[in-house]
Amino acid sequence: MIPLVSTLTEAEQKAWLASLSKHMPELSFGLFSELSQAQKSACEFAIVANPDPNELADLPNLKWVQSLWAGVERMVAAFPEAGFKIVRLVDPHLAETMSEAVLAWTLFLHRDMPYYARQQAQATWQPRSMVRAVERRVGILGLGELGKVSALRLVENGFNVSGWSRQAKQISGVTCLHGEQGMQQLLESSDILICLLPLTAATQSLLNEQTLSLLPAGACLINFARGAIIDDSALKLKLDQGHLAHAVLDVFQQEPLASDNDYWGRHNVTVLPHISAPTHMTSACQVVAKNINYYHETGQIPTAVDMTRGY
Amino acid sequence: MIPLVSTLTEAEQKAWLASLSKHMPELSFGLFSELSQAQKSACEFAIVANPDPNELADLPNLKWVQSLWAGVERMVAAFPEAGFKIVRLVDPHLAETMSEAVLAWTLFLHRDMPYYARQQAQATWQPRSMVRAVERRVGILGLGELGKVSALRLVENGFNVSGWSRQAKQISGVTCLHGEQGMQQLLESSDILICLLPLTAATQSLLNEQTLSLLPAGACLINFARGAIIDDSALKLKLDQGHLAHAVLDVFQQEPLASDNDYWGRHNVTVLPHISAPTHMTSACQVVAKNINYYHETGQIPTAVDMTRGY
Repeated sequence: MIPLVSTLTEAEQKAWLASLSKHMPELSFGLFSELSQAQKSACEFAIVANPDPNELADLPNLKWVQSLWAGVERMVAAFPEAGFKIVRLVDPHLAETMSEAVLAWTLFLHRDMPYYARQQAQATWQPRSMVRAVERRVGILGLGELGKVSALRLVENGFNVSGWSRQAKQISGVTCLHGEQGMQQLLESSDILICLLPLTAATQSLLNEQTLSLLPAGACLINFARGAIIDDSALKLKLDQGHLAHAVLDVFQQEPLASDNDYWGRHNVTVLPHISAPTHMTSACQVVAKNINYYHETGQIPTAVDMTRGY
Repeated sequence: MIPLVSTLTEAEQKAWLASLSKHMPELSFGLFSELSQAQKSACEFAIVANPDPNELADLPNLKWVQSLWAGVERMVAAFPEAGFKIVRLVDPHLAETMSEAVLAWTLFLHRDMPYYARQQAQATWQPRSMVRAVERRVGILGLGELGKVSALRLVENGFNVSGWSRQAKQISGVTCLHGEQGMQQLLESSDILICLLPLTAATQSLLNEQTLSLLPAGACLINFARGAIIDDSALKLKLDQGHLAHAVLDVFQQEPLASDNDYWGRHNVTVLPHISAPTHMTSACQVVAKNINYYHETGQIPTAVDMTRGY
């Protein structure tokens, strides 16, 4: 039996087990709690979704785990020297959904929707002069699977797009920057900055008072990655100073966002409940099935997280 | 001298005259008020922007006018049997800007932005399950220059797009419907309905209680055309009944929208101050210059409004 090791609700676990069984009828899936001691000892592979580290530690012969999400920083932190490999979910549908969210909230900022919402609240009719997409500089932090597809979608829709990655990359139509100097250049030239980085030791609080100050006055920020990449006090300060005009935040250091967090009440912050790119169960199960089949046929573990990089 | 006949503000008139002169340095442009009686009699051509009908009537030998906007219903109504031709602004940049607005506010509705804004106001963290773009049926009323480019942009971004026009049309990737039966079919299958029709006798109050009732329960409406195409009482009724979930209105029967109109205060209406596709002065002047050169070279008036159809 292949266990699902997760902290999902019972209903969510049931739905996942049903979908996994449907896509891989030849295999048997169950909950971690259903494993016998013998099964735990024999278990080489598990499917995980926000797993309890104690449960994973209870599988001594684990070789690899398949995550149902792209972000795996909690597992990496809990098992810095894990004997098993961690495979992230790399789902083309996820990249498509994320690129749609990137486009949607870029247009939200580009077409001044927060401004017009405030005007409406005051029954005020006041058109603002329009900026053409080609004149709007959008910067993307992170050019992995999600960042690349998002950058291309923005280019297709007329924006002036730059992107930054740790290592040099090339993407048609996108100004690709890298390294420390590239980071500074990206920040200085982004009217809208979109964060799609993985959370690692190197990206924790990457967007702090010093880096946010590099953005042009009046810039906007979208965070669809992880909350801890932003230093919240620094962001609030930059918004209060008017240096940043608006932030769209889908991820937070603590989720759900505490009801007394002052992000909720800010007119220059859009709070979203982690909805930019939800896992699509059907396509996720197709990707998982492909990975398991590959492992069974070749004995090789699919491309896994580099524990040094952290993603 | 070629007169600008308009009810624009003095600053707007000055800006237009400067831009027209810059694009056509060999010609002389001025305000209607600067024309001598002899010049009025000799005037064959004028540039118009919401012109005062009395001023146009004061140009007895007018052959054609070039509008700085696409919508010309007021002039058509004022001069049903005009001796002169009316040429609308057909600007590729205008279609590009409109298609961007169509995409932006379609994504606004598709990605549940009004819902999440209400959640934020209540400090509530409640993700809503996502609909994929391919499952979202978008219907466009009007497949002229603006409708066609908008439909194609939505298709490129993954939506399931239908369109309706008076006469049969073919657009790659778009389900094209026409005529009375096609109208019913379009309304019945549009989760998001976008109005881009010209205002004519045939489209006045086209979206009334009967036609709005044909939309699926929970549908949304975007009006980027003209306010009078919608019967406002019927729309408010359908919103109150919950049959329609949300309306994005950029145009109104009276503009600016009166401050006591209850559209302003509705949580299920987004009021915009006629900003979906503002005329871009530079590209508009390029189009106008091309039309004037064509007239000077060939003696032919560029494609003009069909006064029977009204557009």
